[in-house]
Amino acid sequence: MSAIDITVSEVGPRDGLQSIQPVMATEAKKAWITALHGAGVPEIEVGSFVPATVLPQLADTAELVAHARTLTGLTVAVLVPNLRGARDAIAAGAHKITIPLSVSETHSLRNVRRTHAQMYEAVAAIAEAITALPVDQRPLLEGGLSTAFGCTLEGRISEAQVLRAAEQLLAAGCDEVGLSDTTGYADPRSVRRLTQAIWDRFGHKVLTGIHLHNTRGQGLACALAAVETGLTTVDASMGGIGGCPFAPGASGNIVTEDLVFMLEAMGLRTGIDLEKLLQVRQIVRNALPDDIALYGFTPEAGLPKGFRQAP
Amino acid sequence: MSAIDITVSEVGPRDGLQSIQPVMATEAKKAWITALHGAGVPEIEVGSFVPATVLPQLADTAELVAHARTLTGLTVAVLVPNLRGARDAIAAGAHKITIPLSVSETHSLRNVRRTHAQMYEAVAAIAEAITALPVDQRPLLEGGLSTAFGCTLEGRISEAQVLRAAEQLLAAGCDEVGLSDTTGYADPRSVRRLTQAIWDRFGHKVLTGIHLHNTRGQGLACALAAVETGLTTVDASMGGIGGCPFAPGASGNIVTEDLVFMLEAMGLRTGIDLEKLLQVRQIVRNALPDDIALYGFTPEAGLPKGFRQAP
Repeated sequence: MSAIDITVSEVGPRDGLQSIQPVMATEAKKAWITALHGAGVPEIEVGSFVPATVLPQLADTAELVAHARTLTGLTVAVLVPNLRGARDAIAAGAHKITIPLSVSETHSLRNVRRTHAQMYEAVAAIAEAITALPVDQRPLLEGGLSTAFGCTLEGRISEAQVLRAAEQLLAAGCDEVGLSDTTGYADPRSVRRLTQAIWDRFGHKVLTGIHLHNTRGQGLACALAAVETGLTTVDASMGGIGGCPFAPGASGNIVTEDLVFMLEAMGLRTGIDLEKLLQVRQIVRNALPDDIALYGFTPEAGLPKGFRQAP
Repeated sequence: MSAIDITVSEVGPRDGLQSIQPVMATEAKKAWITALHGAGVPEIEVGSFVPATVLPQLADTAELVAHARTLTGLTVAVLVPNLRGARDAIAAGAHKITIPLSVSETHSLRNVRRTHAQMYEAVAAIAEAITALPVDQRPLLEGGLSTAFGCTLEGRISEAQVLRAAEQLLAAGCDEVGLSDTTGYADPRSVRRLTQAIWDRFGHKVLTGIHLHNTRGQGLACALAAVETGLTTVDASMGGIGGCPFAPGASGNIVTEDLVFMLEAMGLRTGIDLEKLLQVRQIVRNALPDDIALYGFTPEAGLPKGFRQAP
């Protein structure tokens, strides 16, 4: 396998499916994950360890982790809201665990009914559980800085708030933090500014990834700013499905197909075969009801005549 | 009026309307143009001087130029395919005349049935007609480098081809050339590369603007690359309507609303009041049949809570 410049992390099976009503069949999810891996997608967030009563769409996450772990070289990522979820994730064998923290405490209370202090306690307990594992079995623990670019409830979020949250997450034992534009408030300049602010304070190693939403159509432009600043992991969702069900108007992840086309057209290697990736979309289309919209322009237009990916 | 960093040139009344079947009523077009000007849009391409038999949608261009000229401070732009159209544009009093040249000669023959040599002759004749005018009545003459980033018929277009076309257009008397991604083949890196190549050869003054399509969802990312490279005029279409009717799969201008949001969020002044701009959309919606899709995310999501434009 050739080297990868940018890791495109597919979050459709988690962020995409959690925000739509219909439950995708487990077998269809497995086929989707297998096909994504077959197209070269290096990292997939396969689900979230939340109670099935809250998100019945993701009730099969443990089974999906087990399945995804059979796919060679794939980084199997999951989201967890708390220690209980993290224990399940560890038991299932996830390679990467993200626990989101809403930098906006108002959003945190509304979203997961937890204060920041409660969240940092949970993170510390998770870090402890991970440290208790043999070194070669420890998943990476990422603290997701949700609403880092603004909050539909609080409005503007200051850089100081984000830095404070990052500091606490790292102090509590996260290996990394990730920038997350839960609400689609980011713009290319704020992406650069916030990335640089975190790097200046905590060094480059603690921040490599960003999760963007396309709420105001800024997704790819922000992704461009992110990778040109030096971030190396970008979340995206096939067909752009998904978003945050608790933040009104915040739906719409950036579209994996369009993101991969942009990166490859720029000569940035993703390890993903675009022709194959575009075919995977049919699995998602077939597994969802017709009234669930799939976004994306590249799948409609096809690849440019004579387009070739760098080897 | 405050200074402007980036000129957003609204091409909806021309590129948008020419690519859809229904003819918008002249009074609706006037109301649209007036409202765009009222929102602060500094430049509008109001139409194209082509025979009404070819594009009946734009048959009222002369009347629209006359109307738009009454709006203080507005740059009134038009497209012309040939000398005859240019004479009409001059007679109507357009401030800026763009004549597109398909850098792909195959596309030129297919699109306007003209060889490059014939096109350069036409440009020279137009430049002569302009030079015959009193200095203060001369419109700016721009040669549009269509298919500069690739062609649906020829595929890849080399940098050398683009430079040769730019050289000929400037030699024939164009004041400026403009980069035009007719087919949605551009990516942020090619935008930068081609802009720099033209600047390196001919200086910065001859190239200030770019016309992008969102065919593969790259529109805003390419616009970001364009303005950060130093281009200062970006074409866009309200609701993203439009495209090239002669290039299959090439529909979709970039969305004015999302572009202005990006620029203003980044602190780049457009002179456009976003709240007012979003209201203008209703005029377009009301004046077009329901089955004509309007694109754009910002209009759906609204502006972020607490969002303020720089004064």
